[in-house]
Parts: sequence; C-alpha cells; structure tokens
Amino acid sequence: MIYADNAATTKLSDTALEAMLPCFQEYYGNPSSVYAAGQNAKRLLENARRQIAACLGAEAREIIFTSGGSESDNQALRTAAAIGAASGKKHIISTAFEHHAILRTLDTLAQEGFRITLLDVPENGIISAEQIEAAIRPDTALVSVMYANNEIGTIQPIAEIGAVCRKRGVLFHTDAVQAAGHLPIDVRMQQIDLLSLSAHKFHGPKGTGILYAKKGLRPARLICGGGQERGVRAGTENLPAIVGMAAALTESANKISDDTAILTRRRDRLIAGLRQIPDSVLNGDQERRLPSNVNFSFDGIEGETLLILLSAAGICASSGSACASGSTEPSHVLRAIGRSTPLAHGSLRLTIGTDITDNEIEYIIRTVTETVAKLRKTSRRLV
Amino acid sequence: MIYADNAATTKLSDTALEAMLPCFQEYYGNPSSVYAAGQNAKRLLENARRQIAACLGAEAREIIFTSGGSESDNQALRTAAAIGAASGKKHIISTAFEHHAILRTLDTLAQEGFRITLLDVPENGIISAEQIEAAIRPDTALVSVMYANNEIGTIQPIAEIGAVCRKRGVLFHTDAVQAAGHLPIDVRMQQIDLLSLSAHKFHGPKGTGILYAKKGLRPARLICGGGQERGVRAGTENLPAIVGMAAALTESANKISDDTAILTRRRDRLIAGLRQIPDSVLNGDQERRLPSNVNFSFDGIEGETLLILLSAAGICASSGSACASGSTEPSHVLRAIGRSTPLAHGSLRLTIGTDITDNEIEYIIRTVTETVAKLRKTSRRLV
Repeated sequence: MIYADNAATTKLSDTALEAMLPCFQEYYGNPSSVYAAGQNAKRLLENARRQIAACLGAEAREIIFTSGGSESDNQALRTAAAIGAASGKKHIISTAFEHHAILRTLDTLAQEGFRITLLDVPENGIISAEQIEAAIRPDTALVSVMYANNEIGTIQPIAEIGAVCRKRGVLFHTDAVQAAGHLPIDVRMQQIDLLSLSAHKFHGPKGTGILYAKKGLRPARLICGGGQERGVRAGTENLPAIVGMAAALTESANKISDDTAILTRRRDRLIAGLRQIPDSVLNGDQERRLPSNVNFSFDGIEGETLLILLSAAGICASSGSACASGSTEPSHVLRAIGRSTPLAHGSLRLTIGTDITDNEIEYIIRTVTETVAKLRKTSRRLV
Repeated sequence: MIYADNAATTKLSDTALEAMLPCFQEYYGNPSSVYAAGQNAKRLLENARRQIAACLGAEAREIIFTSGGSESDNQALRTAAAIGAASGKKHIISTAFEHHAILRTLDTLAQEGFRITLLDVPENGIISAEQIEAAIRPDTALVSVMYANNEIGTIQPIAEIGAVCRKRGVLFHTDAVQAAGHLPIDVRMQQIDLLSLSAHKFHGPKGTGILYAKKGLRPARLICGGGQERGVRAGTENLPAIVGMAAALTESANKISDDTAILTRRRDRLIAGLRQIPDSVLNGDQERRLPSNVNFSFDGIEGETLLILLSAAGICASSGSACASGSTEPSHVLRAIGRSTPLAHGSLRLTIGTDITDNEIEYIIRTVTETVAKLRKTSRRLV
C-alpha cells in the first residue's frame, strides 16, 4: 500500500506513540488533582504546553488544548466574534476556499447578525495581502485566512496578511492545520492573534489540537463545564494525546527543512509526470504549495471512480477533502479557483509523506496515467 | 500508592489499550476515505458504534462520538433547547447538584431567554420523580437529571423520571458519566431521550465520549465543519479512542454485577470505619449510592489539607470534584444537600476500584482517622 493521503490524516510517529504510552496506565491521574499522581500528570501537561509554545514562538499560557482542528477553528472564530461584537464590530473577512470548520461557523455567525466577506480566490490559489487590506472596513473584527489550503496546498502570505491586520487593528486568525509540520510558524513574527492546529495532521494522535490565542485575548468558551484550560475549555485534559502531540510537533519542527527538501523533489517529479497526461491541469500554484501536495484535475474523469481504481492498485489518495467525502457536491476549493464543474469533479489529490520512495512515485505516475486513459476510453465507448 | 479517585479518572484497562494500539500505526486511515485503509478504519468505527449501542440498549445510529462528557452534556442541552425553542417551549428543569458542564450551559441558556428551574436536592441526595412531575409546565422542553452524582455518588431514579417525562411529552436527558460501568443503562427501558458518557470514567481513554440521541432527535451542532457523525459533530473521528471506549464499556458492562458485589462490600467497610471518626457525617444516602463512592464531611477540617496529608501517606483522594479544583468555593453539591460551609469545605471523597484490597481499605480508615485527629489537634492549638 502506498499512502498518499497525508492531508487527510497521518500515521502516528513512533516518537509520539512512545511519549503517549506511559500516560495510559502510569501517569493516568487527573491533572486537576492535588495528590502526587495528579501532579505528575499536571507536570507532563504543562511540559507539553511549553514544548508546543516553543515550536510556535508563543508563550505557554497562550496555548489551549482542544479536541482538534475543527474545534479550534470554531472557537477561534467565536472568540474574535465575541470580542468584535463587544465593540460593535461585526464584520469578518475570510476566503471562499477555507475549511468547512471555518465556512460553516461563518454561516452561523451570519445568521447571528455578523457580516461576512468571503474573498475571491485567484486561479493560482493564493490570496494577497492587498486583497485583505482592500476588504478591511471600520467595522471589521477579524480576518481569517488559512496558512495552506487543504486541497490544493497553496501557501498564503500570512506574515504579510498579519502585518496588514496588525496595522489596521484587526484580529488575524489562521487555520494552520495543513501547514504545521511543513511550514515555519512563528506567531510573533507572523503577527498572528489566533491559530488552529490539529495533531493528527503532523503525525500526532487524533482527537487533540491547539488553539493559540495571543495573551490578552480571552477565548470564548465553546465547551463549558469545569475550570480546565483556565476556564476556557472544559473537560478532563486528554493527557496521552496532548503529550503525543507535543512530541510530534517538536519532531516535525526539527525536521522541516530536511523533509521539505525530500518532499519537494518528489512532489515536483509527480507533477512533471502527471502533467504528461493529456487534458490535465495542476490545481494551485506550482511553486508556492506544500511540498507534500499534488492536485490535478483530469478532464472527463470522475474523481471517485479514479480513487477506487487507484485503491485497487494499492494507492491511497483522495479527491477533494476527506471531511467532505460522501458529498456529491464538487469541491468548493476547486470551484473557488475557477475550475468548471467537470474539472472540479475530476480531481485527484496526492499528499505524500517522506517515507515514499522514488519507485513508488514512478508507480503512481504510471498507474494514474494508465487509469485515466482507461477510464476515458470506457466513457467514450459509453457515449 | 492507593488510587481512590476513580470518579476523577480511571486507569485505562488492558483490554482497552490492546484494542487501541493497532489503530495508531496500522488502522490510521481516515474513515471518510474511499480506499481500503480508510474503509478498514470505517469498519472499526462502526463496529465500535454497534458495540456501544448494544451496551446501552440503543441503535447504532443513535450514538454520536464526542470528545468527552462535557461536550456531550453541552450538546445534549443545546439539542433539547433548540428542539424546545422551535415549538415555543423554553423551560428547562434540572437540579442544583448537576455537573458544571450542565449548570454552566444552563446559565448560558438562561442568558439566551430560557427559563431554568433547578430543583432543590433532599439531604439524602436523591431527587424524586414526584419533584420532577410537580415542576413540569406546559412550556417545559427538557428535564436533565444526572444518573449518579459525581461527588456523593447518589443514584437517581432515572427510570421513574424517564416515565414521568415520556408521559408528559418532555425530553429527558441524563448525564450518566459517573454511572457508566457501575449501573445498568438501557435507554429504551429507562425512557431516556438524551444521554452523556465519558470513556475515561469507565477505564476507557481520555478525550472521547458519547452522546446518545434517540432517533428522530436531530442533535444541534456544537462543533461544525466536516460531515462526520452524520453532520452533527465535525472533526476527524478519534478512532483509537473510540475503539478503546467500546472495549472498555463492553468489558465493564459484562462485569457490573461482579464488580458491584466486590465494591459494595469494601465501600460499606470504609463507611463503617470512617463513621467512627467523631463529628463526621456521610454525605448522600448510605444505600442508594454508587458501589465505589464514599463521601464524608469532617467538622473543623480543611479538605485540601487533609488531601495533601493523605497524598503524603500514599492515598489519592479528592474533596469535591477534580473539575472544580483550584476553586476556593465550597462544593455546590454539598451545599445543595444542605451542608454548612465548614462541612462542605471539610469533605473527603474516596472512589474505589475493584483492584483495592481489604488491607488497603483498613489502611485508608486508619490513616484518615489519625490524620483528622491530628489536624483537629493542630487547629485547636492555633485557636
């Protein structure tokens, strides 16, 4: 099996698993307890928080543990909305190709009286700081732009966007779920106020994530109850997962430049190979994209059918995002960059890991090429 | 170390851990994917759902996976509130000694225009179905009563309450977080419409829980984004934890009657022993309480100090609940059953597991007795 769907989820790293194991049956005490077993757990929890903060250029008290990227995204928007509403600012700027955890929350906020501007996305899949600046109004409370897109992998100029937002006194949130482990994150340098991460996207465990909230910003509670996470996120702390996340983030942060070199070379070979397929188009900018991401549309092809045949050939890939699977709607991301409905339906996303070999890259190119040709032949016969 | 704080959290069972391990690095595919690795994960996910449904007398499609008890409680109340509001019913009945995940959500709902009746709790810590019936009004949307209290362990007559609610056409939610693994749950027989569980309270993993919602009730979304959990709970499914939870719930359900016999005998010995301490009072009904729960108040004692000394003697216990730790407020549960502030401050909760030995029980009795005497002597000297 060749796993080329790392944007959907990643395999837990050995380092993360090793860090987690002692938490299940040894350091299982409740970190909110006064006895030694609880205090040991508390220590591990706060170590993890410091470790994660260090990876992001943040302070430990700015890190809130959540159940994952969706919760973090929801809470980030709710936080900025509450802060904005308190001073009469009810305008939010985002983009048409954000993750559904952002878009659906914005829908709800719109129902609650917020005014939402969703910026158009250029064909290359990269929003500009100028677009942001032009959209800012006196009542703008928040700008939310993802660091890297989950389908086409394009990288947004978040430091520039952060600078514009800071200059104009607008909060800036970035959904960095796809970026973490691939791109440098420094919340001070990049002038980020709110940021979301999901551990299982960078070889950490599922079921945990991070909301970074700049000090001075009190996060709005999404889940209320006990006083955990300084009262802004209730629920017994998921220590094993948090410790695993800290280990995975540290590990991936340390390897970013090495991994980028390895992945970029393989990604570019994949792109060059798949580009030979007639009537194919690369989705998203060729250079300014995650080193792991390849996304093509093939004219006249049904993405789902292609995936099933690739699966039979031992290749795990996706069309659109896993989160939207089961849906018959074409990808909103591909529509946002202007792809026609047939092209949006005929997309293939390959997101590779560093464990992939050159031979496997060649196998993918060969298999996709043959499968696309075969499918086109069949559909021509049917027509 | 003697761990007597199983109401705060429990040690992961071997069975649960074994079930989880293959999910980290083998079945790590995203269950929403079409390829084999994703479909294998999907199969494990749906097996876990069926297993859990079977333990609760529910159907698989009535089980929603969440990040834990607090989220489930929040979502359950939000669900009933949304359903009630749609037909103009904005009155909710609950009790003064619910978990904060309930009480804080009710506070928010009150701010949103809901009218909340919090029933007084009798000194024995048991709400009656008659109290519920008397409080139901034409505009009542929901009754939410916990199955067993998290501090004093008293068991509520939920089947009777369920019958009253069904008869009067009112939704019934029960927070069964403390009950699971100790008391039988059968959502049909007990006429429960909504129910919350947390895996780490029954030797499952932290970071996962269940919301049971009777078919026909569309849960309100708390975390929105992808279409997971049939669109009512976004976020990549936490497969390892879910599979571990299913294993732990099945295991504990199979052992309930054996465990109850073991625990009840030890609990009763603990109660008999601690009752010998002068000026002590058992909190909550002596019989109708969880077989694992002992909760005493000692006059003139500061609970936190007692806990620290017990910790030094190797005993892990709590005062109030771990969720409220760090707070200087006396336990709202003990205040609800009418304890004075000093008695509410001087409480000790011991929640035992089946691994505790008779010798350890005697050691706890001896140590608590001596520590309470010593503390009283010191404080008398200081006065």
